[in-house]
Amino acid sequence: MRTQEMELKGKTPQESQRFDHSENSLTPFTSNFPDRSFGFLEDGTFKQRYLTSDVYWHKPGGLFCSTQGMKATLPGSGFMWEIAKELGAMLIFAEHRYYGESMPFGQDSKHLNYLTSEQALADFAILIKNVKSTLPGAQHSPVISIGGSYGGMLSAWFRMKYPNIVVGALAASAPIWQFPGMVPCGAFYKTVTQDFAKSGYNCEVNIRKSWSAINNISSSASGLVWLSEEFSLCGPLKNKNDVGSFKNWLQETWVNLAMVDYPYEANFLQPLPRWPIQAVCKYLTMDSTVSDKLLLQGVAQAAKVYYNYTGSTSCLNISQTATGNLGILGWFYQSCTEMVMPMCTDGVGDMFEPEEWNFQAFSDECNAMFGVRPRADWAEVVYGGKDISAHSNIIFSNGGLDPWSAGGVTHNISESLVSIMIPDGAHHLDLRYSNKHDPPTVRAARTLELMYFKEWIRQAKRPHRSHSHYRL
Amino acid sequence: MRTQEMELKGKTPQESQRFDHSENSLTPFTSNFPDRSFGFLEDGTFKQRYLTSDVYWHKPGGLFCSTQGMKATLPGSGFMWEIAKELGAMLIFAEHRYYGESMPFGQDSKHLNYLTSEQALADFAILIKNVKSTLPGAQHSPVISIGGSYGGMLSAWFRMKYPNIVVGALAASAPIWQFPGMVPCGAFYKTVTQDFAKSGYNCEVNIRKSWSAINNISSSASGLVWLSEEFSLCGPLKNKNDVGSFKNWLQETWVNLAMVDYPYEANFLQPLPRWPIQAVCKYLTMDSTVSDKLLLQGVAQAAKVYYNYTGSTSCLNISQTATGNLGILGWFYQSCTEMVMPMCTDGVGDMFEPEEWNFQAFSDECNAMFGVRPRADWAEVVYGGKDISAHSNIIFSNGGLDPWSAGGVTHNISESLVSIMIPDGAHHLDLRYSNKHDPPTVRAARTLELMYFKEWIRQAKRPHRSHSHYRL
Repeated sequence: MRTQEMELKGKTPQESQRFDHSENSLTPFTSNFPDRSFGFLEDGTFKQRYLTSDVYWHKPGGLFCSTQGMKATLPGSGFMWEIAKELGAMLIFAEHRYYGESMPFGQDSKHLNYLTSEQALADFAILIKNVKSTLPGAQHSPVISIGGSYGGMLSAWFRMKYPNIVVGALAASAPIWQFPGMVPCGAFYKTVTQDFAKSGYNCEVNIRKSWSAINNISSSASGLVWLSEEFSLCGPLKNKNDVGSFKNWLQETWVNLAMVDYPYEANFLQPLPRWPIQAVCKYLTMDSTVSDKLLLQGVAQAAKVYYNYTGSTSCLNISQTATGNLGILGWFYQSCTEMVMPMCTDGVGDMFEPEEWNFQAFSDECNAMFGVRPRADWAEVVYGGKDISAHSNIIFSNGGLDPWSAGGVTHNISESLVSIMIPDGAHHLDLRYSNKHDPPTVRAARTLELMYFKEWIRQAKRPHRSHSHYRL
Repeated sequence: MRTQEMELKGKTPQESQRFDHSENSLTPFTSNFPDRSFGFLEDGTFKQRYLTSDVYWHKPGGLFCSTQGMKATLPGSGFMWEIAKELGAMLIFAEHRYYGESMPFGQDSKHLNYLTSEQALADFAILIKNVKSTLPGAQHSPVISIGGSYGGMLSAWFRMKYPNIVVGALAASAPIWQFPGMVPCGAFYKTVTQDFAKSGYNCEVNIRKSWSAINNISSSASGLVWLSEEFSLCGPLKNKNDVGSFKNWLQETWVNLAMVDYPYEANFLQPLPRWPIQAVCKYLTMDSTVSDKLLLQGVAQAAKVYYNYTGSTSCLNISQTATGNLGILGWFYQSCTEMVMPMCTDGVGDMFEPEEWNFQAFSDECNAMFGVRPRADWAEVVYGGKDISAHSNIIFSNGGLDPWSAGGVTHNISESLVSIMIPDGAHHLDLRYSNKHDPPTVRAARTLELMYFKEWIRQAKRPHRSHSHYRL
């Protein structure tokens, strides 16, 4: 990621700080570990890490709070630096408990029972309250939360649950409707498929065909060897199980490409060329008469666009799809508890092998792994599902190329709950630094977002009208 | 309470029902008692009791949810029955966890760690979702929450935190601002004092004088005997500690009278005559030359108006100020955790002995009693404090005689966060049955409340306008 960090010269945030959460819990609870609990019964604390930057801050100007963690120096937070400059705002990057270094129980990530979105929101609320009350000049600064992906969901929910703390929220590529019963489970993979269909001749057709080609070739021992060598796998495929893992890994690769189909060289999950799906699809233009082996040779070359764009990768490891640590374990625990997101494929509307959404199987997997079972309905109860019209001042931005847009808010709900669509944008493209290759749609999106931010700040600074009560 | 129950003929709610909460927690947590926890780690459940009545229900009409527990058959819920009839609504009375029979750990109330307002709100949300999805015809019924006092705070917070579940809320006599830093700590007792000042000649003056009279008389052993006999105490006062308890008990008596200063005979905390403070003050008209003993004889007679209006009480017990079980222990735990409500007196603006608000002493008391310490700032963070203008559809009604109005919302905050003042109303008078002695102000308040309910239901039933998104 070194190349991207060069964009940051002169903008380095302050040394990371830590806020000692003594009152961090949304609800009082006790823990099995009496020396470190967060409830009323035991008054344990933990250190939450956060970054601030006041290089652009004109007191008592606004304050932006990132709900996507410590990605301050990554290009995915570039927009925040640009608007901070524009608005004279201070920046706060708050780490989500259980991610990075904000580990309530140290590095022992087994104790995940206090890892919930509600707790994270409460942490953010207390942190901001603390920063505003201790930092001279910040007391009356309106705060706007900004985040993408899960951070975008948190950003939206933060405004919904704590409108006293944030005057508005940008929720970029936030799939707050990717929950049971809200959107069709197949929509996500359909979007992935469409991205490939429009990025090269026969591209999606050949990926759809590749699964049976893999099944055919891998049915013999020599075929397994051939496949392993063709894909330069770090460990050779040995049996049917391995082939299953291999296909999952490939499927995830195509999904990731859809998420990061940016118009310029970037390094979000992997270093990649501009419009990476077009680069991938160049190897997948074969017509219908292609043999299984020739088809799979193309697929292998396509996969290497994703895994070896820099040419420095000696072998491909099917147990990982991104080299960066995105806190996969923590997120998996969350999807096994609150964040139940049904997905399915049918091989017709999408280019993948058919697989139904099986809640029971998923629940069993969660139970085996963490000893927990997901609550399918909880997210809808606590965050409102489709019924969020009572809230205000939230921008939901979505990219048309981004599979997560399928579970996003892609129509305006009210005058102040607005959707911004970026048809040729991938996963939260709008949150990245401006780039000369940016399509006009994302430039316009950022302009509109800035316009709303200014409006929210204006609203917050307007003196409250005095209202009379009904005296009867 | 028998006389009041007669008002209920033909309106008896259904047999109490119990909802098995398997997903009742706002946040996952684990408990020290693995067989009965509510978190993701252990999937324990508990039974929540609730009452429903569909005697007036015209499917799919609205639904009123009481957040004040099982007081369905009490006069304090009379307004709900009257408006249910008017609007063809169904009624649900949901019991708050840890009160009444909804005890997560059975009758062992020591395990209070899951007793919080957030958990109670989550319980209500899940209960209503469940009722609506299982009761034929209720699926699309808009729900309005109604409650008074702490139940009123819950009602307001329910709408703030779960606007997807309730379309609006009536928060009657809900002191949502009786928290640190929001209102002066002395306002509560000033209101009590004003009630007595305007209810009879010299009434407040004599109560203010009574404290030193008690101190004087109780300084001798014979004085202690005299005092105990004059007040017909069940247990005689023996020492200075007892005298302190005696004065606290008297002070609480005057507070309770201010809360229940209703314009007709009623039985909320005790059976009482109409305008009970006027009845009390008849014994407190002495002029400034009165002796300590004569003054205290008057005070004793005044106290007996409260404790022995029916004439059936053989002695007064200074360890209790209300005969009904209002869940005092549970509330005290809540005030020792989240519900930190500063109160103070100065003996000048009020008629009580001066006593400052001492958070540390309070915290120590909580720690000694429950092993917990209160979090003074938490209520403001989680429920917004004075900054609630982003919410909507909440009526805050307050009675001018009610000391809790001092911590209530007594001015309009926005077009849909409205305050209704009832100058000659005591504690949530508007929630009671209509009565021929009702002052015009409470009649008008109820009319206005009903008007808002109709508007909220109308809004909820209006088909959503279709909004377009900004396609760039």
